[in-house]
Amino acid sequence: MSYALNPSVEVIATPPIAEARSWLNPAAFDSDTPLIDLSQAVPSYPPPAEVNAQLKSALDETSTAFYTDICGITPLRDRLAGHMTRAGGDVVGDDVLITAGCNQAFCIAMQALAGRGDNVVVPLPWYFNHRMWLDSLGIETSPVPFNAGSGVPDLDAIRRAIDDRTRAIVLVTPNNPTGAVYSNEYLHAVNAIAIEAGIALVVDETYRDFIHDGSDAEPDPHDLFKLDDWRSSIVQLYSFSKVFSLTGYRVGSIIAGPQMLESCEKIMDCIAICAAAISQQAALAGLETGDAFRRDNRKLMASRLSAIREAFAPDDLDWELVTSGAYFGYLKHPFGDAVDSFSVARRLAQQYNLLTLPGAMFGDGQDEYLRIAFANVEADQFPDVVARLRDASSNWKNNS
Amino acid sequence: MSYALNPSVEVIATPPIAEARSWLNPAAFDSDTPLIDLSQAVPSYPPPAEVNAQLKSALDETSTAFYTDICGITPLRDRLAGHMTRAGGDVVGDDVLITAGCNQAFCIAMQALAGRGDNVVVPLPWYFNHRMWLDSLGIETSPVPFNAGSGVPDLDAIRRAIDDRTRAIVLVTPNNPTGAVYSNEYLHAVNAIAIEAGIALVVDETYRDFIHDGSDAEPDPHDLFKLDDWRSSIVQLYSFSKVFSLTGYRVGSIIAGPQMLESCEKIMDCIAICAAAISQQAALAGLETGDAFRRDNRKLMASRLSAIREAFAPDDLDWELVTSGAYFGYLKHPFGDAVDSFSVARRLAQQYNLLTLPGAMFGDGQDEYLRIAFANVEADQFPDVVARLRDASSNWKNNS
Repeated sequence: MSYALNPSVEVIATPPIAEARSWLNPAAFDSDTPLIDLSQAVPSYPPPAEVNAQLKSALDETSTAFYTDICGITPLRDRLAGHMTRAGGDVVGDDVLITAGCNQAFCIAMQALAGRGDNVVVPLPWYFNHRMWLDSLGIETSPVPFNAGSGVPDLDAIRRAIDDRTRAIVLVTPNNPTGAVYSNEYLHAVNAIAIEAGIALVVDETYRDFIHDGSDAEPDPHDLFKLDDWRSSIVQLYSFSKVFSLTGYRVGSIIAGPQMLESCEKIMDCIAICAAAISQQAALAGLETGDAFRRDNRKLMASRLSAIREAFAPDDLDWELVTSGAYFGYLKHPFGDAVDSFSVARRLAQQYNLLTLPGAMFGDGQDEYLRIAFANVEADQFPDVVARLRDASSNWKNNS
Repeated sequence: MSYALNPSVEVIATPPIAEARSWLNPAAFDSDTPLIDLSQAVPSYPPPAEVNAQLKSALDETSTAFYTDICGITPLRDRLAGHMTRAGGDVVGDDVLITAGCNQAFCIAMQALAGRGDNVVVPLPWYFNHRMWLDSLGIETSPVPFNAGSGVPDLDAIRRAIDDRTRAIVLVTPNNPTGAVYSNEYLHAVNAIAIEAGIALVVDETYRDFIHDGSDAEPDPHDLFKLDDWRSSIVQLYSFSKVFSLTGYRVGSIIAGPQMLESCEKIMDCIAICAAAISQQAALAGLETGDAFRRDNRKLMASRLSAIREAFAPDDLDWELVTSGAYFGYLKHPFGDAVDSFSVARRLAQQYNLLTLPGAMFGDGQDEYLRIAFANVEADQFPDVVARLRDASSNWKNNS
């Protein structure tokens, strides 16, 4: 090759998900040990039938083939604003920018806030694409140590991670990879830290629809939007992908104040012009017709969450479910420093037909952990998961 | 607002297209002076009927709702590779990354090649989103002066624009805004400059399907892909938006060598994960079924191009069609330095119900020009366009 590449992009590591999948060899196992894939954080069920019906109608509209406004179609912006303030608060359509997915929402928000040499506070463990994007722009990641007690980052540790080059605090709740759900009070406390520091609080709520309080009620994870001056500090990121099983349509959103949204709109104009018109129709159809679908899948994930917590409850189990919620559990393996997370995950795949992701994929100091995602694993499989883990720890400890 | 924004994004100007549209007041004109909108570079006709039919079938496939591979679906990558090498050359599916539009292709390519403090050679006038994106990343634009003779940037001027911080040369052919089409020999000459300088040649061919040689034959604008070592210097950007009237689906592509594509894939993973699956199906359906559609619209645009050239041919006309091709003409107004391009465009809109875009939107030193786009203006309207321009120059000169 006769030309050089941008070293900031060239050196960033890609998440070795393909490598993880290559560890599997399901044909080596009999029917007593079926593949259990705890690596995938995406729904495998189809979107609501009403969404597909509306999309077929949308195809008959010529406008579906044409650009929308950069910020998205008005009915979707308005409807999402209403959805986020069901329990009160002041968000209007003009506060909403529709993006092509929540990864894009994160990329746009970060670029609007920070440049090379700035930093952004991100608690460990982090979502790998977040770190990749910050690295690609030369924005430093100021880490907050993992709080293995609750999974909720310590407030003082957040304060300590802020310096005069910090432009934002990033929180993901429910968290990927830990599943930890941050309380309303906690989010307000972090918001106060952000305001005091004169920086933005970016809250990624990709998995908010899977928070379950035991009732059929829609979750209202926080009331940040009831703050009179939420626009002066809060930037919320959201995805339609998981809640309506629309990952392939690429549609998400940013909710923020007008100056921030103006910068975001410029970046959106460059990197996408707009989310695909038909994808915006899919998201709108989801919001209009998907209440029962959302409730049913929330309950489904809640039942799996209960099952996984029950499976990991026994005191004599040496694999510890440190945190869990929404789609995810964060699992501490019993080998301490002796075996790194890649080795543990690889051996579980090769010897037990059980696919997890190594903690090391989610940042520094995560080698004692594995991420398990249960979007596609039935509740009744978790006793088998735990049985295989018990067998693994007993075998490997005896052999080492 | 309690937080600061990234100044590199905050300060970039947005293209004042909304402002331009606000100049219009069609109700002030009678039916003798209908609105003629020469501002839009997007097709207003629907996509091929076969595309919509295939998309309705695609909606019945659950996979349409799910992520594709980051680089796109294999049938589309393979088909596009074949399309680009109809007349020979070696491009395979693995050389192709499907993006969510050609703007995104440009953004990804630039970020893969350059970072803050680097520069990229871009001939004037330039496509405004290109400049916006480079500014947002702190990549400097090293301009090549507009060659008003042919519209084709002077080779020595390109050489002079390169310094030791230059990472790429960007060419857009057919050009937006000028319509100039660069010859095969010219592209090879620029490629030789790029190779000598050890930088990439990025060729944006969004409008390539509208090049017309007077026959029904598909255009083959260049044979760069026949070079044995094209992967060592060439990065090609393409769009399905204009050719198949799919702007709202957001689908384009990057063709490049493996190391470049690896960096591009990382950025794509962050900013989009993948182009929408249904949009990729739309592009594939276009390639599979859209040959006649492509040919007919190429001929339609060619007939408009002939009409516009004929309308501007008279020697006594003081508005000069400097360059033209594909969707665009670049028009030199008769007021020299006396009136800037915004004032000319505004007065044409307000007094003649004729919407053009001011040259100043396309970079420094372009105040003598207007961009006219004829994607949505019929061939028989151009005599009227010229009559209004004649009237304007005669009126305004008498009044100044």
